[in-house]
Amino acid sequence: MSHSAYDRLKHRASRLGALGEAAAILHWDASTMMPKGGGAARGEQLATLAGLAHEMMTAPDVAEDLQAATADGPWDATNLDLMRRAHARATALPTALVEATARANSACEKIWRDAKAASDFAMVRPYLGEVLRLQRETAQALSAATDLSPYDALMEGYQRGVTAAEVEPVFGAYEAFLREALPRAEEIQARRGAPLPLPGPFPAEKQRELCRRLSLRLGLEAEHSRLDESVHPFCGGTPSDVRITTFYSEADPAKALLGVLHETGHALYERGLPEGFARQPVGESAGMAAHESQSLIIEMQACRSDAFLSFLGPELHKLYGGDAAPYATRNLAKLWRRVGRGFIRVDADELTYPAHVILRFRLERAMIGGDLAIADLPGAWAEGLRSLLGITPPDDARGCLQDIHWHDGGFGYFPSYTPGAMAAAQLMKAARIATPGLDAALAEGDLSPLVGWLRVNVHAHGASLGFQDLLRAATGKPLDPMDFQEHLRGRYLNAS
Amino acid sequence: MSHSAYDRLKHRASRLGALGEAAAILHWDASTMMPKGGGAARGEQLATLAGLAHEMMTAPDVAEDLQAATADGPWDATNLDLMRRAHARATALPTALVEATARANSACEKIWRDAKAASDFAMVRPYLGEVLRLQRETAQALSAATDLSPYDALMEGYQRGVTAAEVEPVFGAYEAFLREALPRAEEIQARRGAPLPLPGPFPAEKQRELCRRLSLRLGLEAEHSRLDESVHPFCGGTPSDVRITTFYSEADPAKALLGVLHETGHALYERGLPEGFARQPVGESAGMAAHESQSLIIEMQACRSDAFLSFLGPELHKLYGGDAAPYATRNLAKLWRRVGRGFIRVDADELTYPAHVILRFRLERAMIGGDLAIADLPGAWAEGLRSLLGITPPDDARGCLQDIHWHDGGFGYFPSYTPGAMAAAQLMKAARIATPGLDAALAEGDLSPLVGWLRVNVHAHGASLGFQDLLRAATGKPLDPMDFQEHLRGRYLNAS
Repeated sequence: MSHSAYDRLKHRASRLGALGEAAAILHWDASTMMPKGGGAARGEQLATLAGLAHEMMTAPDVAEDLQAATADGPWDATNLDLMRRAHARATALPTALVEATARANSACEKIWRDAKAASDFAMVRPYLGEVLRLQRETAQALSAATDLSPYDALMEGYQRGVTAAEVEPVFGAYEAFLREALPRAEEIQARRGAPLPLPGPFPAEKQRELCRRLSLRLGLEAEHSRLDESVHPFCGGTPSDVRITTFYSEADPAKALLGVLHETGHALYERGLPEGFARQPVGESAGMAAHESQSLIIEMQACRSDAFLSFLGPELHKLYGGDAAPYATRNLAKLWRRVGRGFIRVDADELTYPAHVILRFRLERAMIGGDLAIADLPGAWAEGLRSLLGITPPDDARGCLQDIHWHDGGFGYFPSYTPGAMAAAQLMKAARIATPGLDAALAEGDLSPLVGWLRVNVHAHGASLGFQDLLRAATGKPLDPMDFQEHLRGRYLNAS
Repeated sequence: MSHSAYDRLKHRASRLGALGEAAAILHWDASTMMPKGGGAARGEQLATLAGLAHEMMTAPDVAEDLQAATADGPWDATNLDLMRRAHARATALPTALVEATARANSACEKIWRDAKAASDFAMVRPYLGEVLRLQRETAQALSAATDLSPYDALMEGYQRGVTAAEVEPVFGAYEAFLREALPRAEEIQARRGAPLPLPGPFPAEKQRELCRRLSLRLGLEAEHSRLDESVHPFCGGTPSDVRITTFYSEADPAKALLGVLHETGHALYERGLPEGFARQPVGESAGMAAHESQSLIIEMQACRSDAFLSFLGPELHKLYGGDAAPYATRNLAKLWRRVGRGFIRVDADELTYPAHVILRFRLERAMIGGDLAIADLPGAWAEGLRSLLGITPPDDARGCLQDIHWHDGGFGYFPSYTPGAMAAAQLMKAARIATPGLDAALAEGDLSPLVGWLRVNVHAHGASLGFQDLLRAATGKPLDPMDFQEHLRGRYLNAS
């Protein structure tokens, strides 16, 4: 009886997984293929799928089965545990709150687009206030149903097993590191002189062909992936059918190129998830920080390394022609490993990126805790950025209006980014030790030693291990921010 | 109370409609975009959506609501009636039968692809036998739940309100007509001499641009449609987001061109359905025969007319260049209105197409009635085709293996085609009377008078009228096969 309860739960999870996959393809389609006039109907379709999934998850017999079920073996035990946590979260929220949240988020996001274009925070303020009010209520309800604080309960929605209390000292230490490291890196950079610009032109068609070719070279299989275009690049689809998107700027070929390498890291993770647990909670990724570690280990650790740039430069030169000098490894490194104090998170280099995350983490934690009112957000933002990077945003568009996240109800996501970047450095270090030929292969444009190691030590674990346990299993220790610092020192603070 | 029962039913229908739309986009994606490796997961996604839809449709409270509900006004009354019929059909079939059918159809269809390639009916015979056995069981169960005979109950699944008893004399009369008309048409055609071939080349890119341009010119809106490629052309998607596909042959530009005009007719019907009843049964099309009438009135009646060809010829010549003579109206008419006795239904001209349909109607009706065994199908096919067209298929691939229909469980669909073709002629005649400038506009490549008339007299009715009532409302009479004969006489039997 108890065994068949677990079988029923697995069957239900599998249907929920299939619904999620259907929604993923519909989301991809909406961003890449759908004619504008299909938008309203697509909204109905996605809302219906989400509503059905919620009903399936919260049906009364699920609670009975969860109570009765037992599971043999560590994978199934974790699977059952993940089902219980997901069920606790889903049933913690009253339907009225879920619906009010969906409405408020959608209204706010819509206004936000105009407010950002007009750089006018006042436009969105009341809407964001309502979003925050409902997020606080949600956090309270989730907290009551779990063993977590309200803000941690929101964080858990994006990355299980990482708490604010764990992240806070890591971020504090990074802030201290950055205070010394950034001026030093800037000084070294200035001493080295400006990079040569790449000579154009960079026709979109050539960029597309190169991006796809590199993505496949990195290990993505043509039979299980696509590369398309969308305004905001992402990696979507399903594990057997991953769909990367990018945006081709004919003025700057680096954006699409490095973007596709980044999304390919996400895609390889999805492809490497354990097929035997497809559409089960334990067969999913280990969370957003783990996912970001996989995109960044490919983009930042591997593909921006001297070794890989020494392979990439001649490839680019062959494709685009013109003067060869700008394609030399040292020049590409200057171009694509440039540090600087900027206002925009998504344009930030890897040294200053954590400062943007730390700022947002502190502000959203204070907002959820009731210690920061929406009206005070622009001021707190400016003060925080000044303290972290020594610059002040000239307007709201380049300040607290730049990200979609809060305006669509996304609170608790930001702190995933930096642990992901740190984990990427830690995993790369471990992979290098375990795989001596790794850098020699990178210099040939061959990522198979790295990706092979990641498949075994990260991807294949699915969600059977939480973020910290995954790092323990792969590197012998939990998150160690010093590996990231070591990486940054080697790349940006080495004056030689 | 009774009113709120109908409201609940409408809400449920709307969710069912949204699930159907989601499945339609996933089907389109599978045929146009999906990498091969996504196939197995796509099967899971679609099976899950279908299963959830069946559960929603057959949930116990639906029966209660259907019993209690009343609806005001003719549209809502028909909507409720359509819900009751759909519910009766859905609940008539035991789950075990539905599942066995899905398995048998899928197994048979798979083997059929190989059997057709090998032209070996024996390969598929046992599988088709099982498909038929389950179709007969299905027909019995549907018959018991409705007021229809078993075969009519299958037909109803494709076109409501058209029975075998109605279709039989129409088909018999056509057979008699064809016996005289076909030799006469062939003789006239021979006397006129062979057409000049169009001079190539016909690059796919030029064909694509032309097809899209014409499709939009016919009235499809760019904001609500796409044109893509797939092995088997179709019109899919949803009413606010219709998706046409085609296949470009660089040897013959007519295939994609006429195919896209055909699918545009389907698409215009979907676009013209009443928005106020979107995702309700009464807001759908009136059935497959009605749908076919809309593709054929565009492709066969309007776009193969002398008037439209006189517009199209110079357009094609401008696009492809070369000698102008082959693009003259009379030559295009010879090329694209050629009649002949062929083995393949989908390649047939409009005069002989009904013979292919009549053959399949008689055979499938006998199979469902238990009067024709699968083992005797190839012989009965050969005999039937000989009697109708005077030719004998040289092998099974060009005989009873050519269509997917029966092999994927599609029994009862074939008889929709010819009433659709006949309705197209009947509607065109009525449209010409109501809209005197129609042909002059066609000669300018302007279909707006015709499409405008169809929007009001066909599309906007949705499923509020059945096939015969739709024709009555639009033309003043039920299906009148003489209008089709009149059209064929004018086009193929006029020796002048």
